[in-house]
Amino acid sequence: MTKDNTDTPVTVVGLGAMGKALAAAFLKAGHPTTVWNRTAGKADDLVANGAVQAATVEDAITASPLVVVCLLDYPTLHKVLGGAATTLTGRTLVNLTNGTPGQARETATWAAGTGADYLDGGIMAVPPMIGQPGSLVLYSGPRPAFDQHSGALGSLGSAQHVGTDPGLASLYDLALLTAMYGQFAGVSHALAMVGPEHAEALTALLPSWLIATAPLSATAGDDDDSPSDMQAVAIANITAASTEQGVHPDLLRHLLIPLRDLLGARAAGQELDALIDQVRTG
Amino acid sequence: MTKDNTDTPVTVVGLGAMGKALAAAFLKAGHPTTVWNRTAGKADDLVANGAVQAATVEDAITASPLVVVCLLDYPTLHKVLGGAATTLTGRTLVNLTNGTPGQARETATWAAGTGADYLDGGIMAVPPMIGQPGSLVLYSGPRPAFDQHSGALGSLGSAQHVGTDPGLASLYDLALLTAMYGQFAGVSHALAMVGPEHAEALTALLPSWLIATAPLSATAGDDDDSPSDMQAVAIANITAASTEQGVHPDLLRHLLIPLRDLLGARAAGQELDALIDQVRTG
Ligand SMILES: NC(=O)c1ccc[n+]([C@@H]2O[C@H](COP(=O)([O-])OP(=O)(O)OC[C@H]3O[C@@H](n4cnc5c(N)ncnc54)[C@H](OP(=O)(O)O)[C@@H]3O)[C@@H](O)[C@H]2O)c1
Ligand SMILES: NC(=O)c1ccc[n+]([C@@H]2O[C@H](COP(=O)([O-])OP(=O)(O)OC[C@H]3O[C@@H](n4cnc5c(N)ncnc54)[C@H](OP(=O)(O)O)[C@@H]3O)[C@@H](O)[C@H]2O)c1
Repeated sequence: MTKDNTDTPVTVVGLGAMGKALAAAFLKAGHPTTVWNRTAGKADDLVANGAVQAATVEDAITASPLVVVCLLDYPTLHKVLGGAATTLTGRTLVNLTNGTPGQARETATWAAGTGADYLDGGIMAVPPMIGQPGSLVLYSGPRPAFDQHSGALGSLGSAQHVGTDPGLASLYDLALLTAMYGQFAGVSHALAMVGPEHAEALTALLPSWLIATAPLSATAGDDDDSPSDMQAVAIANITAASTEQGVHPDLLRHLLIPLRDLLGARAAGQELDALIDQVRTG
Repeated sequence: MTKDNTDTPVTVVGLGAMGKALAAAFLKAGHPTTVWNRTAGKADDLVANGAVQAATVEDAITASPLVVVCLLDYPTLHKVLGGAATTLTGRTLVNLTNGTPGQARETATWAAGTGADYLDGGIMAVPPMIGQPGSLVLYSGPRPAFDQHSGALGSLGSAQHVGTDPGLASLYDLALLTAMYGQFAGVSHALAMVGPEHAEALTALLPSWLIATAPLSATAGDDDDSPSDMQAVAIANITAASTEQGVHPDLLRHLLIPLRDLLGARAAGQELDALIDQVRTG
């Protein structure tokens, strides 16, 4: 196997918000790029920048040894690729569609039946970040297929192989998304607490604050620096201030219950538990 | 009023994990520093580094024009300072104890009765960060008192005045803490999803990921880059993968419900609502 260089042709199937960004990054890195999308008009800008638009999925696949697919979901992927299975033989199929570990493993089995190498991936970036320094894409599946194409895949951002089990990229992807949604939920409650009058001032403080606290997340809990008594008081204050500010208690409850699980048995006394049960039932 | 220079004496009342870090930062910046704590032995290291230990709270207050208090909660503050009210006249009392906006406003009124200037503050840092570049302390209350002491207070970290209403530092502090606890809750679910086998690998990815997503938090929702259909699928995948991984559905529910509120009416169709109601009830 020879490793990719920038002459390696690449095909992108699916030109939604993300697929368009992927194809644009391959083009920018110099790869001959073939594209296909159900709604053909979404290829116009890419064609203007040098992409070749294939008339059919089969034509798109046949154009390149490396086929990257980014569609809405796995049922869509199987609908789009199902009739073109024979054209996949001997190629590497890289699936960047968001799905579950189970779906990734099933699709790996299906791809093996077509004679393709299969890598599953999770894109940890929004479209404008693709090809930029902060962009990360996780991959799982056979290491040789990853090594062969890591050059081309590197056009999208930092390419990280997380394991040979094809389900792992998806598992890590969904776990990281969950962590992000927790961040969003916390911010949503925080903005509700301060109200519209202070939303702008708080929004200015939030990014650097969350950046400072991010590294603490994975090790949060009781320690000498942040005694759990003190944390229980802070949580009681959040509860009281939220009530003072008229924030819907549901939102709060959803943050505190996982927090109790997090501090868990390490929290001194039952104060935190009692507090949360009170919020939960009241 | 003359502004503080490094000759300005400072008193620190309360030498818990945080109070000790505050006093150490004042000492390091060159301020003559007097300390008091209920449990006297906690002053030993500070005294070895040049602090003066007062025998009583009254003595501690009388030693400095700037008195910084950092105790477990407001009831403790009133218990500790209540008998020493007359010694506060003409001094600036800076209260860095975590509390609610209501408690801060009540304490400002009480302090006005003693003839002290009162600033309320919120420390957005853990003890090891105090005096380091990343440390931020929010203050609210009369601007002249803040301006006079911003030099000494700057020894603790970046000092930011957020308004004259004494309750505002506390409100912003609790809101930022809530956002942090959301981040922690998300991480807690994420680690549960991947399980102990993958906890270390995920923990390595989390900080830079959460740092990348932090700026998105305040503007999250439907947009052209991240269509809400696509987000609804990702959430369905998180739900399914969590079930596959045997994660307690309670945790998930708490993340998804605020998320629905966040995407709210902008989410296309009822798919997300239906999904969440299913998780909620099932
Ligand atoms: N956007 C992001 O922020 C982001 C971030 C990370 C990962 N991702 C992942 O990237 C994948 C694509 O997301 P996206 O943002 O590009 O979504 P999108 O803009 O909604 O695009 C969806 C894509 O799927 C196609 N599609 C949907 N239903 C189809 C059907 N029945 N038959 C054929 N094609 C169909 C669409 O084709 P038409 O154009 O013809 O509708 C389009 O190409 C998702 O798995 C998503 O989770 C996205
Ligand atoms: N640690 C952090 O990560 C952190 C971060 C930001 C803000 N803060 C805030 O800083 C404040 C102090 O936190 P901390 O971490 O220093 O807590 P801590 O280590 O638990 O210290 C509590 C302090 O309160 C005193 N105290 C408690 N009950 C008392 C009583 N009945 N009478 C007299 N003194 C009493 C303790 O005195 P003894 O030593 O005699 O027990 C000690 O000085 C809290 O409001 C907290 O929210 C802390």
